[in-house]
Amino acid sequence: MSPFRFQVTARAGRARVGLLPTPHGTVETPLFMPVGTQGSVKGLLPRDLKEIGSQVLLANTYHLLLRPGPERVRAFGGLHGFAGWKGPWLTDSGGFQVMSLGHLRRIDERGVVFQSHLNGDLVELTPERSIAVQEALGADLIMAFDECPPYPSPREYLKASLERTLRWLERSLKAKTRPDQGLFGITQGGTDPTLRRLSTLETLRFDLPGYAIGGLAVGESKEEMFPMVELSTALLPEERPRYLMGVGHPEDLVAAMGLGVDLFDCVYPTRTGRFGSALVPEGRLNLKNARHLEEKEPLEEGCDCYACQNFSRGYIAHLVRSGEMLGAILLSLHNLRFLHRLTEGAKAAIREGRYGDFARAFAERRFGREVPLWFREALASGGHW
Amino acid sequence: MSPFRFQVTARAGRARVGLLPTPHGTVETPLFMPVGTQGSVKGLLPRDLKEIGSQVLLANTYHLLLRPGPERVRAFGGLHGFAGWKGPWLTDSGGFQVMSLGHLRRIDERGVVFQSHLNGDLVELTPERSIAVQEALGADLIMAFDECPPYPSPREYLKASLERTLRWLERSLKAKTRPDQGLFGITQGGTDPTLRRLSTLETLRFDLPGYAIGGLAVGESKEEMFPMVELSTALLPEERPRYLMGVGHPEDLVAAMGLGVDLFDCVYPTRTGRFGSALVPEGRLNLKNARHLEEKEPLEEGCDCYACQNFSRGYIAHLVRSGEMLGAILLSLHNLRFLHRLTEGAKAAIREGRYGDFARAFAERRFGREVPLWFREALASGGHW
Repeated sequence: MSPFRFQVTARAGRARVGLLPTPHGTVETPLFMPVGTQGSVKGLLPRDLKEIGSQVLLANTYHLLLRPGPERVRAFGGLHGFAGWKGPWLTDSGGFQVMSLGHLRRIDERGVVFQSHLNGDLVELTPERSIAVQEALGADLIMAFDECPPYPSPREYLKASLERTLRWLERSLKAKTRPDQGLFGITQGGTDPTLRRLSTLETLRFDLPGYAIGGLAVGESKEEMFPMVELSTALLPEERPRYLMGVGHPEDLVAAMGLGVDLFDCVYPTRTGRFGSALVPEGRLNLKNARHLEEKEPLEEGCDCYACQNFSRGYIAHLVRSGEMLGAILLSLHNLRFLHRLTEGAKAAIREGRYGDFARAFAERRFGREVPLWFREALASGGHW
Repeated sequence: MSPFRFQVTARAGRARVGLLPTPHGTVETPLFMPVGTQGSVKGLLPRDLKEIGSQVLLANTYHLLLRPGPERVRAFGGLHGFAGWKGPWLTDSGGFQVMSLGHLRRIDERGVVFQSHLNGDLVELTPERSIAVQEALGADLIMAFDECPPYPSPREYLKASLERTLRWLERSLKAKTRPDQGLFGITQGGTDPTLRRLSTLETLRFDLPGYAIGGLAVGESKEEMFPMVELSTALLPEERPRYLMGVGHPEDLVAAMGLGVDLFDCVYPTRTGRFGSALVPEGRLNLKNARHLEEKEPLEEGCDCYACQNFSRGYIAHLVRSGEMLGAILLSLHNLRFLHRLTEGAKAAIREGRYGDFARAFAERRFGREVPLWFREALASGGHW
């Protein structure tokens, strides 16, 4: 398969299984991408990530631009040579981080100027610079430079911003020189259906190897977010991968996969692991809770990860209390495996035409009798409820 | 082989290779024991430790007594059931930690009273209590309760202390009930040859599965320490393992193995790794040094560890600068592998009757032309220089 030519291999309602070829291997969707902000998924060896089924790692352009700098990463052969993960990488454009880390100094047509959180330097990021940095980093999948407006934003701002993001997409594409990187466009429009539709349709005027749904999971409710996902995947072409940026809660993955989303990323599984919590089908276990100190069972019965196969909740709770790195490591490993098992289960269910059953079984354990309306609605829109 | 019946399988000068059977497997000496203070070698999975050749892990009775408590560890099946390392464990007596952590409140014939660094509680540790705690923890090798006096200490204090330690050894032995744990006695006497000899000879009146050389590497110079090691191994029986406590610098291992020491432990390789340094044949690389950011070679050319096989100094230096956990993990892994390769190289050299060559080759890289006298003297005493 030629790089980036996405192929849907199975469908159930609006959910689908697909193959996305990249220069560093073909990956199967839906999939969750662990975040390696500074070129390392915190606490985990690349071989551990491979073992638990990670397929693509995400690195943050903002962080790597500041340290160690794009030219240094290029000199080591890009992320693949630098960071020990030989499979596909995805880099974001840096835009979101500039805004979310709050060091933004100026935003205008040209781009953004921000202050480095490391040394206070003023740094400019433009579509051209973002692409140049992403070309130096060398990821397989790269992102157009966009603005992700805060939530809530006035409608007029959202509108002006999404139009600028479209002009930035055009500049990003013009700046791009490497044929071995696939550039995704990013749709915006906040939670306004008209603006979201406008942004999506205008972005689709560019024929790209994939499209990302941006500007969501930034503070709005699930009731506001999922109609935007539904609207987006209804407009996006079947034969292109859809990437819902920054989403990583298990229930969000199940709802979004039902609507035909293929790619996800989020710091949630690793961050919540470092904070001492384990993802389980019922939600989240806080290992700081004293009752876990006595428990001999694994984090999650039936989980095949190294943490669950070899350690008890009691031991991991002891590590968390004692501030031992190994606690964060085992929880991060399990939490990522939890999300990978979730997408693997979804793939099997889609292939067997039983995604509705899969989602219902998930919801029963996650929510009990009170399955929230936003979840049922998303699944119903996807043709599964 | 019956547990703890040590067998010397090869000799070169005073250096030797031996087999030490324990209930959780026979280990080959000389060996270095990674320290898992709170039941975890910081940042490393048990399978990573197995892969790099770790054979025995050490856990600290002081820490585990305070948290999670011996009864909780016992309820999980002791350290073997609790902490995911199924091979042999060794626990110290807690005495050294009480003194070195500086929370000591009282020391008398009965034992010590110290203040918990966790909650301020006053806790008593006696020979009987130390053994009871170590029996609950369930390590294969346990240590008699001793006092490790600070350096320097007045001769009169050293003398009174070592005599009390001998009485504590007797009480430790009387308190011991589990036949599946081997108890080592600990010799003291500071750097006073007469007292060191006295302590060793008196300790030898107890027929034990092994003997530890205690009270060294606590601040004295190498010139003061190695004559004590020499004197000790000359007195200790050939058919018992000798354990030099708290020693982990590579040059110290090479000198001490030459004198017939079999077991070592130290936090040095993991602690120095967490602080950003790598052990190499020439000494130590500080990865915080800017020049390493550009270096594409591994931490140590020819090292077979996962860190050296997959990552450059440049990447690891980036991780260290960025405060990424993975930096500490990769450095700890390499540093432990460095010491394990050192003892493995020593074993091969002893078997082939060329320990002198081994020590000279080590010294040439480590010290260049100026091999310190204490090192040459130790090697000469061992019959290798």
